Amino acid sequence: MISVREANNIILNSTQDFGVEEIPFIKSVGRILKEVITADRDFPPFNRVSMDGICIDFDAFKNGQRDFKVEGIQAAGSEQLSMQNAKNCIEVMTGAVLPNNANTVIRYEDVTIKNGIATINIDLINENQNVHPKGKDGKVGDVLISENKIISAAEIGVLATVGKSLVKVAKLPKVMIVSTGDELVGVDEIPLEHQIRRSNVFTLVSLLERLNISSETAHIIDDKSVLKQKIKRFLKEFDVLLFSGAVSKGKFDFLPEVLEELEVEKRFHKVAQRPGKPFWFGENKDCKVFAFPGNPISTFVNCLAYFYPWYSKSVGLEIEEETAILGEDVSFKPNLEYFLQVKLESKYGHLVAFPIKGNGSGDLASLVKTDAFIQLPNDKTEFKKGEVFSIIRYR
Amino acid sequence: MISVREANNIILNSTQDFGVEEIPFIKSVGRILKEVITADRDFPPFNRVSMDGICIDFDAFKNGQRDFKVEGIQAAGSEQLSMQNAKNCIEVMTGAVLPNNANTVIRYEDVTIKNGIATINIDLINENQNVHPKGKDGKVGDVLISENKIISAAEIGVLATVGKSLVKVAKLPKVMIVSTGDELVGVDEIPLEHQIRRSNVFTLVSLLERLNISSETAHIIDDKSVLKQKIKRFLKEFDVLLFSGAVSKGKFDFLPEVLEELEVEKRFHKVAQRPGKPFWFGENKDCKVFAFPGNPISTFVNCLAYFYPWYSKSVGLEIEEETAILGEDVSFKPNLEYFLQVKLESKYGHLVAFPIKGNGSGDLASLVKTDAFIQLPNDKTEFKKGEVFSIIRYR
Repeated sequence: MISVREANNIILNSTQDFGVEEIPFIKSVGRILKEVITADRDFPPFNRVSMDGICIDFDAFKNGQRDFKVEGIQAAGSEQLSMQNAKNCIEVMTGAVLPNNANTVIRYEDVTIKNGIATINIDLINENQNVHPKGKDGKVGDVLISENKIISAAEIGVLATVGKSLVKVAKLPKVMIVSTGDELVGVDEIPLEHQIRRSNVFTLVSLLERLNISSETAHIIDDKSVLKQKIKRFLKEFDVLLFSGAVSKGKFDFLPEVLEELEVEKRFHKVAQRPGKPFWFGENKDCKVFAFPGNPISTFVNCLAYFYPWYSKSVGLEIEEETAILGEDVSFKPNLEYFLQVKLESKYGHLVAFPIKGNGSGDLASLVKTDAFIQLPNDKTEFKKGEVFSIIRYR
Repeated sequence: MISVREANNIILNSTQDFGVEEIPFIKSVGRILKEVITADRDFPPFNRVSMDGICIDFDAFKNGQRDFKVEGIQAAGSEQLSMQNAKNCIEVMTGAVLPNNANTVIRYEDVTIKNGIATINIDLINENQNVHPKGKDGKVGDVLISENKIISAAEIGVLATVGKSLVKVAKLPKVMIVSTGDELVGVDEIPLEHQIRRSNVFTLVSLLERLNISSETAHIIDDKSVLKQKIKRFLKEFDVLLFSGAVSKGKFDFLPEVLEELEVEKRFHKVAQRPGKPFWFGENKDCKVFAFPGNPISTFVNCLAYFYPWYSKSVGLEIEEETAILGEDVSFKPNLEYFLQVKLESKYGHLVAFPIKGNGSGDLASLVKTDAFIQLPNDKTEFKKGEVFSIIRYR
């Protein structure tokens, strides 16, 4: 049995490059950028008026002039005008190009316009005010977004501005999620006394959807030859297989055996953690296999603790550790790393994690009451309120 | 000009009920649950074996017996067996029903099975161990998920388990996002010197996508009659209109005027904040109109600060305030609430917000470098490192 840290290292050394694809920028939210986005022109691309008002040559104002004949209007989206007389003014709109021969904008609030003459009503004016100068935010060729960034609404705005209607992003892995276990029936079915409905595959589908990965699902009965035949096909067709169940010591837990017969190389089986100890991980040249234990919380936490970082590193995302302050004392004796369910509260800039007692790894409903797992290391048994540990959020 | 707090109050008093719809549970991630989910049976629904091994009647063990004849195997998903003889045992698999006349499970690791006889190799065994008793996690009829919860992977698992293949969720509003401004050209186009590409509508589309709301977009030229005619139609067809631009003091900022002519009742125009001051909000019986100023950061922050909480309250979500610790001193003189862009860092359970200096509300690219806005109130001008303020995250 290896430690959580060892398991993580093995998994993070088995990352996979899924390649790059080009997609419409507006579909790219949540995807990982695989090119450098540079400015196609200066930002702003011209001396941009940033207030509605009039523009003047500041020298005229400095020399005491207060009344300015209005020569015309410079609208946003119109070609640049030139002020014909340095003692005149032009009305200018936010977003417009600053007219030639003008350098300073006075907002309408500080001006009276009557009979074609604009009178400035204030005495404090700075040269170049209310003008956003060409190239101030960035020069043509400047890097605006670096590679490997997750695309959010902020990046979408920049992509639109520089005209990237198509954008290169990391391809998504092809994932098959497989449940096993003859006790399982469909969500639409009425289970008999000794049966329960399938739920883990749907939980996994949803956890992958959070990463923008769409997946397929299958259920295989507890029959070794059927299992082998189906997995053989899945190994060829998918980049990743996620299993839930059949990895423990039961008579029908054929999965590790079948995977090894199919020449999927075992990297480890069993991690010193609770819940989720019987986790099996292996790979062949083209496919990674995450075989999670079948208890709902075990499947859930292992997907977050292992598949998530594996995927992030595979697509080039840096993994940022998040920590929280334990909200009450916890005692945990077994020599295992403890993924404890917690409810998070953000208070005065502090993130506090309150443990919620569930009824073990089968208690699916307890996940509804919590937001994250706090990761209590196995080198001690007493964890004090106020101590800080890593957390894995799932909402 | 009203305060941010007043603007918020007005908006939160104008919420709207979009109704309820029933959708397949697997499509419901991110949606707001509009029914109470109860247990359709006990959890677990039977005395559930939680370890692979053998089951016995504890009394036999207590009386000194260590060798047990194996009567059979109880697999997961098989009908409950009955142990015929209280001095025998049955092999049991995780997830199986505990056989009748047995009450205690000993895991395979602590047993040797040879010639049909299982010998228990340990002396410390507790009655009822490794059995997850019927109804321990919940009783039939117990509330598992309450109404108005956002559905995440955790809830998906519960919905599957109780057989809710269809689930009632809040309907999404029909939203139209409109840009104005003759300086704007399409993302695919090469702008002339005095033009820029449309970006705000796409930013808004992406911000709404985060809430699972899909939206339509339109661009209207700066022509009052065209504007009026199109908006008249949009007011009939949509629940919400979001505008970007045409709300300031410019000669072509027709929007407030047009909206009032179309009998959209103005609730306010201008909020004492930077950026985003010229924000206009109004409504008629069927439609809410958020008319954001056209500068990219203004549009962005107003969508987060006003549309997000309005939507959340409309669908019944409780809004949780998040706070962060200011990472350096900030001085801000204007008598305005300041939405300052920050980069967040989670350190030792503390969330620290580091201000990033952008070049004003036109500097779209600066949003790529930051994660959130910290909200600095307008009752002071000096904000010290270490003080705590509300934040609005956008990633």
